[in-house]
Amino acid sequence: MVLRTLSKFFNPKSVAIIGASHTKGKIGYAILENFVKGHFKGKVYPVNPDTSPILGLTVYSSVKAIPGKVDLAVVVVPAIVVPKVLKECVAKRIEAVIVVSGGFSETGERGRKLEEELKKIIRGTKTRLLGVNGLGVYDPVTDVDTIFNPRSRLSRPPAGTVGFISQSGAVGATILDWLAEEGIGISKFISYENATDINECDCLEYLGMDRKTKVIALFIEGVKDGKRFIKIAKKVSRKKPIVVLKGGKTKAGAKAAASHTGALAGSAAVYSAVFKQTGAIEARNWSELFDYAKAFSQPLPKGNRIAIITNGGGFGVLAADECERQGLQLPEPSAKLKRIFNKNFPAYASLRNPIDLTGDATAERYRIALEACLASKEYDGAIVIALFQIPTLEPEVTDVLIGLKKYKKPVICCSAGGRYSKKLSKRLEAGGIPVYLTPTQAVKAMAALVRYHKWLRR
Amino acid sequence: MVLRTLSKFFNPKSVAIIGASHTKGKIGYAILENFVKGHFKGKVYPVNPDTSPILGLTVYSSVKAIPGKVDLAVVVVPAIVVPKVLKECVAKRIEAVIVVSGGFSETGERGRKLEEELKKIIRGTKTRLLGVNGLGVYDPVTDVDTIFNPRSRLSRPPAGTVGFISQSGAVGATILDWLAEEGIGISKFISYENATDINECDCLEYLGMDRKTKVIALFIEGVKDGKRFIKIAKKVSRKKPIVVLKGGKTKAGAKAAASHTGALAGSAAVYSAVFKQTGAIEARNWSELFDYAKAFSQPLPKGNRIAIITNGGGFGVLAADECERQGLQLPEPSAKLKRIFNKNFPAYASLRNPIDLTGDATAERYRIALEACLASKEYDGAIVIALFQIPTLEPEVTDVLIGLKKYKKPVICCSAGGRYSKKLSKRLEAGGIPVYLTPTQAVKAMAALVRYHKWLRR
Repeated sequence: MVLRTLSKFFNPKSVAIIGASHTKGKIGYAILENFVKGHFKGKVYPVNPDTSPILGLTVYSSVKAIPGKVDLAVVVVPAIVVPKVLKECVAKRIEAVIVVSGGFSETGERGRKLEEELKKIIRGTKTRLLGVNGLGVYDPVTDVDTIFNPRSRLSRPPAGTVGFISQSGAVGATILDWLAEEGIGISKFISYENATDINECDCLEYLGMDRKTKVIALFIEGVKDGKRFIKIAKKVSRKKPIVVLKGGKTKAGAKAAASHTGALAGSAAVYSAVFKQTGAIEARNWSELFDYAKAFSQPLPKGNRIAIITNGGGFGVLAADECERQGLQLPEPSAKLKRIFNKNFPAYASLRNPIDLTGDATAERYRIALEACLASKEYDGAIVIALFQIPTLEPEVTDVLIGLKKYKKPVICCSAGGRYSKKLSKRLEAGGIPVYLTPTQAVKAMAALVRYHKWLRR
Repeated sequence: MVLRTLSKFFNPKSVAIIGASHTKGKIGYAILENFVKGHFKGKVYPVNPDTSPILGLTVYSSVKAIPGKVDLAVVVVPAIVVPKVLKECVAKRIEAVIVVSGGFSETGERGRKLEEELKKIIRGTKTRLLGVNGLGVYDPVTDVDTIFNPRSRLSRPPAGTVGFISQSGAVGATILDWLAEEGIGISKFISYENATDINECDCLEYLGMDRKTKVIALFIEGVKDGKRFIKIAKKVSRKKPIVVLKGGKTKAGAKAAASHTGALAGSAAVYSAVFKQTGAIEARNWSELFDYAKAFSQPLPKGNRIAIITNGGGFGVLAADECERQGLQLPEPSAKLKRIFNKNFPAYASLRNPIDLTGDATAERYRIALEACLASKEYDGAIVIALFQIPTLEPEVTDVLIGLKKYKKPVICCSAGGRYSKKLSKRLEAGGIPVYLTPTQAVKAMAALVRYHKWLRR
C-alpha cells in the first residue's frame, strides 16, 4: 500500500507547489524552478494567494482551484497554515504530499501538537505525507526534484544505482552534491525528516523493491518501530546492501537530534547491535556513509585476503596498518607470483604485501602485478594505491584498472592529491572503480564489502 | 651544526643535479626542470656522462668538472653508482647532498651494506646527506624544489606557515598537492626517507627554529634515537605545535615499513605515549595529519566549551556526537544569549547547542549568533557548519566568518558539498578559516587545538 503511494512521489503526472513564491531566493521559488527548468515532463501548478504568474506559469489561489488531477503536492507554507492546506489536499484526493515546512515537533510542545493535527487529518484517507521538515525527493530519471537548494549551488548526481534515504535534508543534500562532484549516480533520494507519516521503514521497503537501486544508503536519527525496522532491514539486506549512519549516538548528539527531528535517539549500543544483526553496514560518520555506498559497485570479495599494490611506500605502510585494524589479511605472494614479479620489476621493488612498485612505476607494472594477483587464488580483492603524480606513470593506467573487471573481484583505489589526480580519479569512477583520497578510506571500504559478504554467508 | 647545514639545503647559491637526464619523463629530467623553469635564482649544473646540453644548460661529466663552488648536490643515479658520486661530492666540498636514488637498506642486506658505505664516506667530513630514497626538499620562497613529480601533475603550495617533514616522499608529496589544491601555504618541505644521515630529529630541530614555520607536520615510520626525539620534540612543542602521524603502528604496517624505509617501527603504544608526553598531537591517518596541521592557523582555545552554529540539523547532530567523543563541552547558551537569539531568529530555530539557524539561514543570522557566542565568556571557540547550498545564504557569509578574527578565539568551519561549496570554502581558507568537508573532521581539528593548549598549560 505504502509502496504504491511511494512510487507516486517519484512518478507524478502533475505537481502542485503550494507556497510557490514570486521572489527569487525564496524556498518556494527554488522548488518551482526545479520543475520548470529541469526536464520534468508532467504538469506543474504553482499555488499562491497572489495569482500573478511565476516563471510564466498560471498561479492558482489554492489546490481546490486547480482544474485537473494532482498526483503530488509540495507544501512550503508557514507551519501554522499547513493543517488547512493539508485538508485541501485530502479534499482534492492528492495521494502524495511532501511537507517541506518546518516548525513542528522539532521546536517543542506547540509544534508537536500541530504535527499531531496533521496525522489526524490524513488518518483513514488515501493521502500519505512525506516530511514534515524535509527536503522531499529527487529522481534523476523523472527529474522530480523538490530539493530547495538551487542547482547552481547544489549539483544533482546523474542516474545510477545508489538509493539514498536521509532523515536529515542537510546530510542528504550535501552527499548528493558530493556524489555529483565525483560523477557517481543515484537511483532515488528521499529526505523524510520528522517521519510524521512515511518513515524510514517505508522508504527502506520501497527502495528494497526498486529495481534501479543496487545499494541503499540510510541516515537516521531515530527509528520509530524497532521491530519493523529489524524485519525489513533483514529482508532488504538479503537482496542488496544497506549502509547506515546513525546520528545522535552520544548524549550530546541525542539531545541535538531531539531538537532537530524530534527523534528519540535511543541507545547507541542497541542500534549497533541491530545493524549487525540485520546485515546493515554501519558507517560511523558522513564520509563513511558516502565511501561505503560507492564501494558496493564492486563484486563482493569471497574472503578477506587482500593484495595492496602501491607506488608509494608510505601509503603502503598506512594501508597495511588499516588492514590489520579492519581484520583484512595481507598474505605474501606465493613463490609462483614472485617469479612473475621478479622477472618484470626492478630489484628495488618490494614483493611482499604491500607490493611496492616504487616511485618509477609504470602502467605496465600495475597491469602485471594486478592481473597476477587477481587471476590467482591467493587474493580475494585488491587495493590499488595509484599516485598519479609520479613522472613515469602513464595516465593510461586508468584503462588498466578499469580493465580488471573481468576478474570479478573487488578493486578499490586510493589516489591522494590535487587537480591532476582528481581528473584521473574521475576517469576511474566513470569506469566503475571507486576511488578514495586516503588509504584509510580505501581499506575501510574494502572491509565493508568483506563484512557484508560474511553476513550473507553466515 | 646540522642546523647550519640544513639551511644550505633550502638556500643554495648553486645546485648540481647528478644524473640529470636528457629524456623527458625521467626523474633526472623532472628535477632539473624544476630548477630551470621555476624561479630559483642560483646556478644550476646538470651532471651526466653524456655532456650534450639539457634544457639549454651546459652539462658536466662529473661534479669535479664543475668550475665553481657547489652548495647543494641532488643525486639521481642508480644505487650502485651512488658511493662513487658521493665521494666526488665530498672531494668537491659540497656540504648538502640529497640522494633521491632508492635501492638501499629498504631492499635487503645488500642494499643495507651499500647504505653503510655512504655513511662511512661522509663520516668526519662536512658533507651531510638527506635521503637516501627520498624526495629531498621544497622551499616555496627560494624555489629549491627537488621533488621529481612534475608540477603539471603535482601542484606546489604557496608560501605559508606549515613546515612539513615526511619520512615518506609519497605521503609528503600528496599532502603538498592537496595543500596546493586548497590554497594553503607551507614554509618548508623535507622528505628524508631512509634517514641515512639527517633524520627526523635534525629536521624537527631545524623547523623548530625556523621563523617562517608556525606549525610542524611530521610523518614518521620509525625514530632512530628515542631519547633525542623526546628531548627535541618537547622543546619544539613549547614553541610551536607538532602534528605527527606514525606509520607502521600495526604488525602488518611495521612489516611494510621495514620494506619501505628500513625503519624499525617499534611499539605503537610506546610511540603514542611519547607523543603525548612531548605535546605532539598525534594524527591517526593521512587526513588527520593534514586536517590538524591547517587547524593551527587558529588562536588556541582557552578551554573546551564550544558553540556549534549550523544551518543543517543533521550536521549539528553529527558534530555534537563527535564533540562528546572528543571530550568537547557544548554548554547551552545563557538566558542572556538566548534573548539576543530570540529577538533575531525565527521561532523554529533551535537555540540550544548546536544552535540551528535552520535551512533558511542568512549571513546576518550567522553574524549575530557567532558574534554573541564569541564575545561572551561562555565559549572558548566555535564550530561553524555552513552549508552554502541553501538558497537564502548569501555568499558574503564568508566575510562574516573571516571578520570573526577580532575575537581571538578559534573558528573552524565545516562545509560539505561540491563545486559551489568548494569555491566558497577556498575563499574562507584564503581568509584564514580552516574548512573541512565533514563535521567529524571539523570537530577533531578543534579537539586537537584544545589538546595542545591543555598540554602547554599542564
